[in-house]
Amino acid sequence: MVDVVISGTVALDSIRTPFGEVREVLGGSAVYSSVAASGFARPGIVSVIGKDFPRKYLSFLKTMGIDTAGIEVKKGDTFRWAGYYEYDMNQAHTLDTKLNVLAEFDPLLPEAYREAGFLFLANTDPEVQMKVHGQMKKPRFVMMDTMNFWIENKKDALTKMIEKVDALVLNDAEARQYWDTPNLVHAGRSFLKMGPSVVIIKKGEHGALMFTDGACFSAPAYPLERLVDPTGAGDSFAGGFIGWLARTGDLSPRNMRKAVIFGSAIASYNAEGFSLDRLKKITRDDIFNRYMMFQDIVSF
Amino acid sequence: MVDVVISGTVALDSIRTPFGEVREVLGGSAVYSSVAASGFARPGIVSVIGKDFPRKYLSFLKTMGIDTAGIEVKKGDTFRWAGYYEYDMNQAHTLDTKLNVLAEFDPLLPEAYREAGFLFLANTDPEVQMKVHGQMKKPRFVMMDTMNFWIENKKDALTKMIEKVDALVLNDAEARQYWDTPNLVHAGRSFLKMGPSVVIIKKGEHGALMFTDGACFSAPAYPLERLVDPTGAGDSFAGGFIGWLARTGDLSPRNMRKAVIFGSAIASYNAEGFSLDRLKKITRDDIFNRYMMFQDIVSF
Repeated sequence: MVDVVISGTVALDSIRTPFGEVREVLGGSAVYSSVAASGFARPGIVSVIGKDFPRKYLSFLKTMGIDTAGIEVKKGDTFRWAGYYEYDMNQAHTLDTKLNVLAEFDPLLPEAYREAGFLFLANTDPEVQMKVHGQMKKPRFVMMDTMNFWIENKKDALTKMIEKVDALVLNDAEARQYWDTPNLVHAGRSFLKMGPSVVIIKKGEHGALMFTDGACFSAPAYPLERLVDPTGAGDSFAGGFIGWLARTGDLSPRNMRKAVIFGSAIASYNAEGFSLDRLKKITRDDIFNRYMMFQDIVSF
Repeated sequence: MVDVVISGTVALDSIRTPFGEVREVLGGSAVYSSVAASGFARPGIVSVIGKDFPRKYLSFLKTMGIDTAGIEVKKGDTFRWAGYYEYDMNQAHTLDTKLNVLAEFDPLLPEAYREAGFLFLANTDPEVQMKVHGQMKKPRFVMMDTMNFWIENKKDALTKMIEKVDALVLNDAEARQYWDTPNLVHAGRSFLKMGPSVVIIKKGEHGALMFTDGACFSAPAYPLERLVDPTGAGDSFAGGFIGWLARTGDLSPRNMRKAVIFGSAIASYNAEGFSLDRLKKITRDDIFNRYMMFQDIVSF
């Protein structure tokens, strides 16, 4: 039984950072978030790959307890992203994006997915997100992410999508861009007025802010002295967050705060290695240990 | 009896922000930090002003319980700073700096100051900071701030000064600049190795990080939807921090964390008005109320 449906990209990434370089490794928003969620729940991916997609990567996802029935295999090549990070790893530089089979992705959810209680619409075209959402029966909790490209090019469709979800998660630059304001508190509260009851603004090395009705929660980032590769940190965060909610079934503001910390803990592990190298090795104990470290980092 | 000696600038500021404009108002690092510290302790300022300095501002400092015996009055004009903030108020733009009497400031501490237990060397020339430090008898706790100009132009003198203090407080860009690293955790821990047992990196809207032996404390910024003028926020933070330590006399890591939150609370009030407009009106109750709000903002 799938309990968290995650739609987004499955990608082959080529990445260079000051700590090394990898080529055509497993990546993509749906991959990072479902691997992160798999620590707590049973995710099912909705995405598309090409005939060239390495079989070992599909096997890997299955061994993590992820349902891959919703990954359509189409004629053509898999989506690819190539980029690099300079010394300041807060900023990704894109070298090349090849949409390939993703260009005409028309999502079709397996029957077994449609009853799931939790849905995460990871970053993709808001029209694709809408199609995925429309196929779900009656999810208890729907969360979405987005990116600057859709704010610039499909703001109307994006706005319609935001109005439908329970939770919006996006990064600080995107939140500022959508509302044309430098003030994140203003941006966060403005999103709440559109419909979502939860808005999470990711701030990279500065942690995350979560806005709910009348309250603001601030979570630090885990103080990492050595980031190896930040790719997928935001998606790991979101996956860990929704995975914890699905596991506990508790949508109280208090439990959402815990979910933010679990998401942050998992995201911090993710940045310690390339691709899924680090995430695939962490245990639930590792996650809980880091959760306790967060408690220490903020307590006064 | 002065219990916190604060050396730094006393200035006449002219500031424009999207919310208004003020001309020749009271400002300067020693002013903001001593007004902030006055909520908890009795500060004494070490600085210099010109004959043109408005008498009403001196009276104001005295009504806040601040000792002004260490403010030398010299022939000439008072230090002036003119600047503006655009829509993004994280970034101050300097229009004009007139050092005036500050250019040849040779600090001389009143006898009554030299026995004080707490010393804050707010941002000034590190050679001036060293002279102030040298005149103190045996302070229990010495903290210093600095800025990019001294890192660029007097790094050796600055380094000698850092090696002598208990605590270093500076902003994120300065910490990165000193160590030529984008990683604040690395920068913070590197400063600890130089001598200070406490390093606080101020991150503006993202709060502050405090590094002590083996531990990292992350404090959020208070989520303000409307900043009127951020000038002096960093100095208010530092003043509130050392004021709390002086009041309690407790230098344990636990109490330092509380001091960071008190400093953050006072700094957040400061940004709600121009000059000292807001700080001069807040009560100790206001400070404690916001302290409790911080507790809520981070708890999970």
